[in-house]
Amino acid sequence: MQKNEKIKVAIFGYGNIGKAVEEAVSVTNDMTLAGIFHHDEMGRLQACQPDIVLLGVPSREVPKAVEQLLKAGLNTVDSFDIHTQIPTVHKHLDEVARQNKAVSILSAGWDPGSDSMVRALMQALVPQGVTFTDFGPGRSMGHTVAAKNIEGVKDALSMTIPLGTGIHRRMVYIELEEGYSYEKVRDAILHDDYFAHDETHVIEVDNVKDLNNVAHGVHLSRNGVSGTTHNQRIELTMSINNPALTGQIMVATARAAMRMAQRGQNGCYTMIELAPIDLLEGEKEEWIKRLV
Amino acid sequence: MQKNEKIKVAIFGYGNIGKAVEEAVSVTNDMTLAGIFHHDEMGRLQACQPDIVLLGVPSREVPKAVEQLLKAGLNTVDSFDIHTQIPTVHKHLDEVARQNKAVSILSAGWDPGSDSMVRALMQALVPQGVTFTDFGPGRSMGHTVAAKNIEGVKDALSMTIPLGTGIHRRMVYIELEEGYSYEKVRDAILHDDYFAHDETHVIEVDNVKDLNNVAHGVHLSRNGVSGTTHNQRIELTMSINNPALTGQIMVATARAAMRMAQRGQNGCYTMIELAPIDLLEGEKEEWIKRLV
Repeated sequence: MQKNEKIKVAIFGYGNIGKAVEEAVSVTNDMTLAGIFHHDEMGRLQACQPDIVLLGVPSREVPKAVEQLLKAGLNTVDSFDIHTQIPTVHKHLDEVARQNKAVSILSAGWDPGSDSMVRALMQALVPQGVTFTDFGPGRSMGHTVAAKNIEGVKDALSMTIPLGTGIHRRMVYIELEEGYSYEKVRDAILHDDYFAHDETHVIEVDNVKDLNNVAHGVHLSRNGVSGTTHNQRIELTMSINNPALTGQIMVATARAAMRMAQRGQNGCYTMIELAPIDLLEGEKEEWIKRLV
Repeated sequence: MQKNEKIKVAIFGYGNIGKAVEEAVSVTNDMTLAGIFHHDEMGRLQACQPDIVLLGVPSREVPKAVEQLLKAGLNTVDSFDIHTQIPTVHKHLDEVARQNKAVSILSAGWDPGSDSMVRALMQALVPQGVTFTDFGPGRSMGHTVAAKNIEGVKDALSMTIPLGTGIHRRMVYIELEEGYSYEKVRDAILHDDYFAHDETHVIEVDNVKDLNNVAHGVHLSRNGVSGTTHNQRIELTMSINNPALTGQIMVATARAAMRMAQRGQNGCYTMIELAPIDLLEGEKEEWIKRLV
């Protein structure tokens, strides 16, 4: 890719996220869509030789798919959201990315992702204290996909309800496949790693589609100490369309990834390792003038 | 400086900010105070050979002092807050820093500074829309120093009052030097570049000290479009001790500057060019685990 040439973006996986990425790419001036590839089209994707691949496949399939793409020398961005697995996946993909001279951005959504950047900033400004992340109310895409993957679930929707101080309730609305018992499916959901750690209610409904709404939100708050001074308070609140924001963040992050690739900074990064200016389209000088 | 050796920090200028920097350094585990130097001790400061100099001199003296320090091969962090001059100062100091193989971080306070990072992040998440920055109520250090510098002013305090949508009122409380007329001093304040663009009220009081309070706050808000989806809302609110937060940010930024110096990334940077993780004490892997 030459300077001033458009970034050729491929989308791998075409669900909510893939579609949101497509929309976000369409309103940029520095990117062009190289192609949209379904789940089973890894070969065709590699043959298309994009500058970067944005993954819209379910989180559980992300590590393997990213590894395969990096080994083909392709840069990647994903929104892997299984928080507990991030350190291990990050370490492994960092080695793979370096070996294959590529850049991979892991967990580039809003949480993990931009919220992580805000948590890091809050930590730097207020090194001593507690940060609370309160999600919702809203539909969690990761939890919804996890519920849909349970045997016997025809359709599902998982709502996240904030109970304060980082404690959440999961409201899981399900439609059953014929021949499955509610009790058995409910227990499978309650034991799934996505749900096992929170208060979870599984509710059977006739039609999940009627409940669908991709609105979501988050409230990050930290109260603590700067230097030796207590009672320093910072809060961030968002009210958002969830896939639209995720798609937008992946596209902004793809731009950062390409800049890092051009600077030879090969490896796998989470968003707290990125400079905010690299996420923005256009010239550095202009943003310093407008934003600083 | 070797890896795992403590960063030797010098403080240049010892007012509110210099004292807050001293406090913030005292609670780190990775820094040690090399010395505190007053305004007129540039020679003694250079002789002490710190790893980095944190400047607590008035903003108007920052560009010249930073240039002098960079030319002596010293890394610097300042909290220069004259927004309109930042692009020019940044460009000039970037050349000086590169020529002298040093790292300089410009405007590392909370605004400009960490707020700039949040504005950049908001811009990346919501590329189309309007961001409002509403300050206060609180004492503006930059405006207070500017008012104190006016001839005939014995003491001053400038309060920033948010009127919403980025519009502010300045309440300037002054004590006069003997022999000066209120009207003449008031007009000099109203024509100063710090005050000329806002609604400003100058009030004569008997004792400015009685009004003093370093509490401050800010509300950043953006409503706009992610991809093609409207009504995406993000807000940040802070309620803080102003010099304590500024000192803390300068110290966190000094850490980032030293990491950048070790990576050979010489030059002058604003905070939107920094990765949040570089602001944090300790190992990268641990923060990825805790914050992402």
